[in-house]
Amino acid sequence: MTEAVRDASRRRADTVARLENDIDVWVATAGGGRPHLVPLSLAWDGTRVIVATPAGSPTATNAAASGEVRLALGPTRDVTIIEAAAEVVPCADAPDPVARTYAERTGWDPREEDVPHVYLVATPRTMRAWNSLAEITGRTIMRDGGWTA
Amino acid sequence: MTEAVRDASRRRADTVARLENDIDVWVATAGGGRPHLVPLSLAWDGTRVIVATPAGSPTATNAAASGEVRLALGPTRDVTIIEAAAEVVPCADAPDPVARTYAERTGWDPREEDVPHVYLVATPRTMRAWNSLAEITGRTIMRDGGWTA
Repeated sequence: MTEAVRDASRRRADTVARLENDIDVWVATAGGGRPHLVPLSLAWDGTRVIVATPAGSPTATNAAASGEVRLALGPTRDVTIIEAAAEVVPCADAPDPVARTYAERTGWDPREEDVPHVYLVATPRTMRAWNSLAEITGRTIMRDGGWTA
Repeated sequence: MTEAVRDASRRRADTVARLENDIDVWVATAGGGRPHLVPLSLAWDGTRVIVATPAGSPTATNAAASGEVRLALGPTRDVTIIEAAAEVVPCADAPDPVARTYAERTGWDPREEDVPHVYLVATPRTMRAWNSLAEITGRTIMRDGGWTA
């Protein structure tokens, strides 16, 4: 937890740094009225978060059915929470740029797994970033898919 | 991420240490087919995780409707994921031990807030703990509410 309250452009820059450098993202989905939550390795193509998971996993089936995911970056006292529209694509059918972006970032190519995997391609609609109670005000750094600063 | 694969009793001890000492827990809920996810300050009374949140928050309303939460402790490479039955209790009506346990652990008494708050009292059913791919096998340390070791 830091002391200074960041302005929106600083929070955006910090969030983009996480999207470009963090190893994992928390991925929450909902299915049948039940929440699911797992950490997954992430990639970022400049506008979309990409994760990969077995095609039969709750994350894949929930996201395919609802089209929605909620992502969290960072530790609990320096977070960005992302509401995103999710598209689920079998790895074998994925556009090459998606697969290459993911493999280059994570060092793992899920197209080579024996168990079929999918990419979950998440387009952020809303992002909120805060690292203290003092930062609750002004935490919305993306609204309706557009950065606020 | 550590190297050694922990046995179940070690994973249990590490998880209990987190339940007794961590500041926050990730709380995932589902409502209307949508996932919600936030970090909240936690307390642990020896058998139940206690968090507090405004009565009107998505976390409170989702947990009250579904009776389910999914919690995550730790960073993404050293996690415990907890499936729990959730009871939602207005702070004003809460048993004194719940309120005291929460206030002593967090240093914050939500009964004193102007906005009505609730306690979300989560009884774990399943817990899984892992810190590497090598630990995926043997990750279930609680099943049907009972520790496996």
